[in-house]
Amino acid sequence: MKFGGTSMAGTERIRRVAGIVKRQQEAGHEVAVVVSAMSGETDRLVNFCREANPLYDPAEYDVVVASGEQVTSGLLALHLQALGCKARSWLGWQLPVRTDDAHAKARIETIDSEALLASMAAGEIAVIPGFQGLTEDNRVTTLGRGGSDTSAVAVAAAVKADRCDIYTDVDGVYTTDPRIVAKAQKLKSVTYEEMLELASVGSKVLQTRSVSLAMKENVRVQVLSSFIDENAPAADTLPGTMIVSDEELEGLDMERQLITGIAADKNEAKVILTRVPDRPGAVATIFGPLAETNINVDMIIQNVGREHTDTDVTFTVPSADLDKAKSVLEEQQAKIGFEKMTTDPKVAKISVVGVGMRSHAGVASTMFKALADRGINIQAISTSEIKVSVLIDADEVELAVRVLHTAYGLDGA
Amino acid sequence: MKFGGTSMAGTERIRRVAGIVKRQQEAGHEVAVVVSAMSGETDRLVNFCREANPLYDPAEYDVVVASGEQVTSGLLALHLQALGCKARSWLGWQLPVRTDDAHAKARIETIDSEALLASMAAGEIAVIPGFQGLTEDNRVTTLGRGGSDTSAVAVAAAVKADRCDIYTDVDGVYTTDPRIVAKAQKLKSVTYEEMLELASVGSKVLQTRSVSLAMKENVRVQVLSSFIDENAPAADTLPGTMIVSDEELEGLDMERQLITGIAADKNEAKVILTRVPDRPGAVATIFGPLAETNINVDMIIQNVGREHTDTDVTFTVPSADLDKAKSVLEEQQAKIGFEKMTTDPKVAKISVVGVGMRSHAGVASTMFKALADRGINIQAISTSEIKVSVLIDADEVELAVRVLHTAYGLDGA
Repeated sequence: MKFGGTSMAGTERIRRVAGIVKRQQEAGHEVAVVVSAMSGETDRLVNFCREANPLYDPAEYDVVVASGEQVTSGLLALHLQALGCKARSWLGWQLPVRTDDAHAKARIETIDSEALLASMAAGEIAVIPGFQGLTEDNRVTTLGRGGSDTSAVAVAAAVKADRCDIYTDVDGVYTTDPRIVAKAQKLKSVTYEEMLELASVGSKVLQTRSVSLAMKENVRVQVLSSFIDENAPAADTLPGTMIVSDEELEGLDMERQLITGIAADKNEAKVILTRVPDRPGAVATIFGPLAETNINVDMIIQNVGREHTDTDVTFTVPSADLDKAKSVLEEQQAKIGFEKMTTDPKVAKISVVGVGMRSHAGVASTMFKALADRGINIQAISTSEIKVSVLIDADEVELAVRVLHTAYGLDGA
Repeated sequence: MKFGGTSMAGTERIRRVAGIVKRQQEAGHEVAVVVSAMSGETDRLVNFCREANPLYDPAEYDVVVASGEQVTSGLLALHLQALGCKARSWLGWQLPVRTDDAHAKARIETIDSEALLASMAAGEIAVIPGFQGLTEDNRVTTLGRGGSDTSAVAVAAAVKADRCDIYTDVDGVYTTDPRIVAKAQKLKSVTYEEMLELASVGSKVLQTRSVSLAMKENVRVQVLSSFIDENAPAADTLPGTMIVSDEELEGLDMERQLITGIAADKNEAKVILTRVPDRPGAVATIFGPLAETNINVDMIIQNVGREHTDTDVTFTVPSADLDKAKSVLEEQQAKIGFEKMTTDPKVAKISVVGVGMRSHAGVASTMFKALADRGINIQAISTSEIKVSVLIDADEVELAVRVLHTAYGLDGA
């Protein structure tokens, strides 16, 4: 079980979490719980580090910020004890959670589960601070912001858990954003790949890294709400969304739609470079300098011109990076050799995602037709095996999501 | 060097501390720094534990409260780095600081200094969170409130430091409380024994445990102000008070007065039991039940009655415990066999302290005469090798301290 910062923010909330955990134990489970710091606490600690030194040493930063989860792990153990449960905290260096030495963005290598399993088998609930680990030379690391989801999946893999339940602010993964489409439905299950595609296009329910790890280690992850009634039946009844492998999906959700969900990302900006010379290495001269400036390029579409001597290159960058991208490209104009740069800061990416499209033709054409019928202009298209994304005007994003949600038969009652 | 919570309370103050530490390194020293949590932080964390469970598990309490010093140790390392120093934090479990397993009040057993000394020899400033340690089975301990002074002395002993500088809210140890006697003088030096006597009678400059440890390990401790100008010469000029052994004292302070200081403790209450049967074991029936109730009895004076069949027993307890002491003794009246109990909540203990009195007669009589001359009535007397204490009316305490300060020639210019 994993609880985030909102669930750990203060005595009353931690008491509720303890109640939810206790019910899982009463339902017959051995339980390990991974916790985040109280919401706001990590920001407070990061701020102290920045004030100390804007170019802070990440090794000492890790010592400071890892303390937030240490506090909540001890407190949850105390709350569980107050409810009559046996419980103890296991800090990152105690298990230990071994990571590489990339401080502030470490990656988990192994988790020693022997003592942990013995403690759990003896009926003790294990409370583990998320986000933290230990290098080979005995120094504290953290996994980067939001790393507690990854810690939870890693612990679940280490103890070969039946399930990794991640309690969040939402009660599951939806076919689309319920704030846009009132008829959005909660999904019973999604595959790891679908979740990754949905996450990367804006459904930030889980940290992407944690989903990749779950896929690699084949950990069954459930996303569910931490605001459930603490006296409700234990989560074996699977009230949330299960994230599982392709194989397992079949058994869980027979009547699944072809398309799993529709995601929208409004934080995109479009750049068009016209009449780029059509020669080997031309594209590298565009994207090399952007990568060096840490600008994350997303969709890339290249149309060869009619005379086959030049080409137009369209791509998107995060809106926040548009100005930086423009100045990088202007500096490189002579080298790249494009004629003109056009930018549009007001575009949005709409994606339809679903493993079903692998075996079904026509998914993309349904999308194009539905949008065309409502007069929504498609500015660019990109596809992957389980996703079709289009770029449209940002003002039309809500309309487009609603139209597609209906077109793919996702509207609930 | 050790800095308390007031010195570590926030970015600006930690930056000042870093400046003071840096100057010590520039003066040619290898430096280890022990830090407290930001002032208020430990209280905040203790409160979370109490809210979780009033009968909290001290092992988990230790996990929670030890985080406060972890934060400040990382931050001071970052601030030192910002000033161009090499620095790193060493958490209790990293050194490790081995303690017994008496959680929340652990005692330090050993500190492994090998890695620490190597790091310091390489020019790295070591920043060590006070108050925390590690049990043999790898769990976090804390030393009890105020334990950072003890951590500092233990680290100084482990690295065989030339000096342990403890930066506090005051700039040294005075002949008496400067708020009572304007002419009180800062002492250049006191012995461990004197410091213990002064501490136990109310001059709470240092934690008593840390002084005992310094005496045992023969660590030279300097008390000095953390509010010194950070650009002032490094503390080799000894602006504070040195706490040293008897032997060393001679060399440091030739012109030392017979009496080192005068301490007053107003938080005393007096209990008189009259006509206690004068038989073996009678005293045990009084003090046994008080000890079981955790009431700390201080002065005990027993006068055998004229007929040698009974005796009056006078003793003091902390004012806060008087009511509890009364009810314990009333319950035991039949067993103890005293005739009457009289109590006085408004008494104070005045002590004159000085190693010089070992070799000089007349110290006590000077005290009695000086008080008698001003009409101050002595209610009880107790003496140790380097201390004479008297019990007087609490209303007369300021007058008594001033009179004695003058009588022993301690008044400054």
